Amino acid sequence: MDRRSFIKKAGVVTAGAAAATTLATPAISQGMRELTMVTTWPKNFPGLGTGAQRFADRITAMTDGRITVNLLAAGELVPAFEAFDAVASGAADMYHGAEYYWLGKHKAFAFFTAVPMGMLANEFDGWMNHGGGQELWDELAAGFGVKGIMAGNTGVQMGGWFAKEINSMEDMRGLTMRMPGLGGEVLRRMGASAVSIPGGEIFPALQSGAIDATEFVGPWNDRAFGFQRILKNYYYPGFHEPGSGLSAGINMDVWNSLTPADQTIFRAAGLAENNDMYSEFMANNGTSLNALINEDDVILRRFPDDVFAEMVRASEEVVQESAEDEIGQRILDSYLRARRDIGRWARISEHVYAEARNSILDI
Amino acid sequence: MDRRSFIKKAGVVTAGAAAATTLATPAISQGMRELTMVTTWPKNFPGLGTGAQRFADRITAMTDGRITVNLLAAGELVPAFEAFDAVASGAADMYHGAEYYWLGKHKAFAFFTAVPMGMLANEFDGWMNHGGGQELWDELAAGFGVKGIMAGNTGVQMGGWFAKEINSMEDMRGLTMRMPGLGGEVLRRMGASAVSIPGGEIFPALQSGAIDATEFVGPWNDRAFGFQRILKNYYYPGFHEPGSGLSAGINMDVWNSLTPADQTIFRAAGLAENNDMYSEFMANNGTSLNALINEDDVILRRFPDDVFAEMVRASEEVVQESAEDEIGQRILDSYLRARRDIGRWARISEHVYAEARNSILDI
Repeated sequence: MDRRSFIKKAGVVTAGAAAATTLATPAISQGMRELTMVTTWPKNFPGLGTGAQRFADRITAMTDGRITVNLLAAGELVPAFEAFDAVASGAADMYHGAEYYWLGKHKAFAFFTAVPMGMLANEFDGWMNHGGGQELWDELAAGFGVKGIMAGNTGVQMGGWFAKEINSMEDMRGLTMRMPGLGGEVLRRMGASAVSIPGGEIFPALQSGAIDATEFVGPWNDRAFGFQRILKNYYYPGFHEPGSGLSAGINMDVWNSLTPADQTIFRAAGLAENNDMYSEFMANNGTSLNALINEDDVILRRFPDDVFAEMVRASEEVVQESAEDEIGQRILDSYLRARRDIGRWARISEHVYAEARNSILDI
Repeated sequence: MDRRSFIKKAGVVTAGAAAATTLATPAISQGMRELTMVTTWPKNFPGLGTGAQRFADRITAMTDGRITVNLLAAGELVPAFEAFDAVASGAADMYHGAEYYWLGKHKAFAFFTAVPMGMLANEFDGWMNHGGGQELWDELAAGFGVKGIMAGNTGVQMGGWFAKEINSMEDMRGLTMRMPGLGGEVLRRMGASAVSIPGGEIFPALQSGAIDATEFVGPWNDRAFGFQRILKNYYYPGFHEPGSGLSAGINMDVWNSLTPADQTIFRAAGLAENNDMYSEFMANNGTSLNALINEDDVILRRFPDDVFAEMVRASEEVVQESAEDEIGQRILDSYLRARRDIGRWARISEHVYAEARNSILDI
């Protein structure tokens, strides 16, 4: 199916987007422009799909329809994991996804989503916005003809869903678990098998028995996928994605064709979504966690200390080894420096405060 | 001095703001518009003043100069604490400040900056963006002819600077400490005297001996003001402002005169600043804390457990009593519900993760 019919089929309705129903040629003659944004998410999937849609709609609204961003869900134009190639080649104008899906292009892309035992969302944003992260990402992505901007964050992800209790390292061995990115490599070093499949394919894989454990994001997203109907043991804390940044990638020629004002609008839409999506996850994960426990008979469990310590050990090993070339090493060094410096501030501010508040007030 | 000469005196240079040098009448005839934004901050003060400037510049840049936001520092048009009245009356178009400076108008404004033992920045944003906070604020501020949008956050604030060590409750009694908002009332219940003065007036007040302890924000801001030249005992964690949201207030007639596209631009500029400023504080507080300790001989100290427990007790009392009318009660109830629900999620996600990571990796 060609691209135009996909756009039509998607039936995208965007705020202030009268232009979306205008044929392309007259639109261009009026100085209007349509951009196709492929995504790695199911259409309107809570948090991720709806966040991508809000990001697209915000650009359309802020440009008063001069630029209409038409969102296509995973599979509409290209499969989820081909979004990067579609944008690099110009088959699509932009994507919304997660950089660690492009590990096959370069391992260092992982640092622009999340790495095992890495930074929390607010620490990560400190690095990206004011600690040198964006500049390193620009350098890496430019080699592929893509301009990247952060546009969303899930916050800490849960440890995952397991058929059986995890009481020791022995219970991790032999598991086949869905986990993308470097986290999957950590699992392999702990004796498990790790597979990387898009979110929308996890439920059938659990049903068929192709995998026997999975993580995805957290209570809000996981419940929407229905994992609680198959598995009951829900583990925390997740070691693998402590604050996953979601990203928009824009074809470099498209990016360079934007006016400075419109480039500022795109960047602001990304920063706005960092705040909007992350806060949405904060607000909805609590409610969904309560529902999982009280309505769905899910059992919330914490990983045993020795299993978590082994996750930390293997994570540090995998992350240290991920620098495959000179730019990879610079990205690794910059990331670890930020984790230490920002992490030390966070320790005596947010974490000491929260621990004292929560224990005294029984939160 | 009249308003126009202040604008001229301020010598504001904003991105893409060729319109700023155009006289008002021709600008209006070209569909261009200038808005005056008063602030409660010194000009270009790190984080707060620069964040307000970035917020103003982003609106100017995104509208391609159709709207130019001219920033005036505290004292240029009106003193810091008169910014709200200036906007409500139409003497200024908008302000950038902190809602707890308007406690004299209504006590519930405190909840839209921070309250003692309240929510962290990410919990607060969850409430504001997706937990009903914005709607309650809209209702409260509309009564004064102001539309509010969040535009920045400092993160957790430090406990403050003290001439002498705090070893017991006895050491808190008799202190004269700068602390605005409800935190000041908490100090009074602990036997101290609390005064509320703008940031720029703290240093001279310390020099003159008018106050003998102060808090302001955190390492980055506090060091810029030079408190370390007078006091050496720097305490954590702060009980009084765990994640202070900064805000823009827009005169309601001005807000209603904006097109839907421009209203979206203003809102997005605010959300973007929530992310940008908070991440800037995260990145810079660590560096500044190191400098305070290693270059300025500051001693980092933690409040004794019994003193902090008393801060919690008095805080809960003051916050509970702050509901002075029906809307105040609804705001209090909504805030406390969000603190519990979002806080419980944060506890098993961010805080459990950070504690385990930091202790194993010695961060």
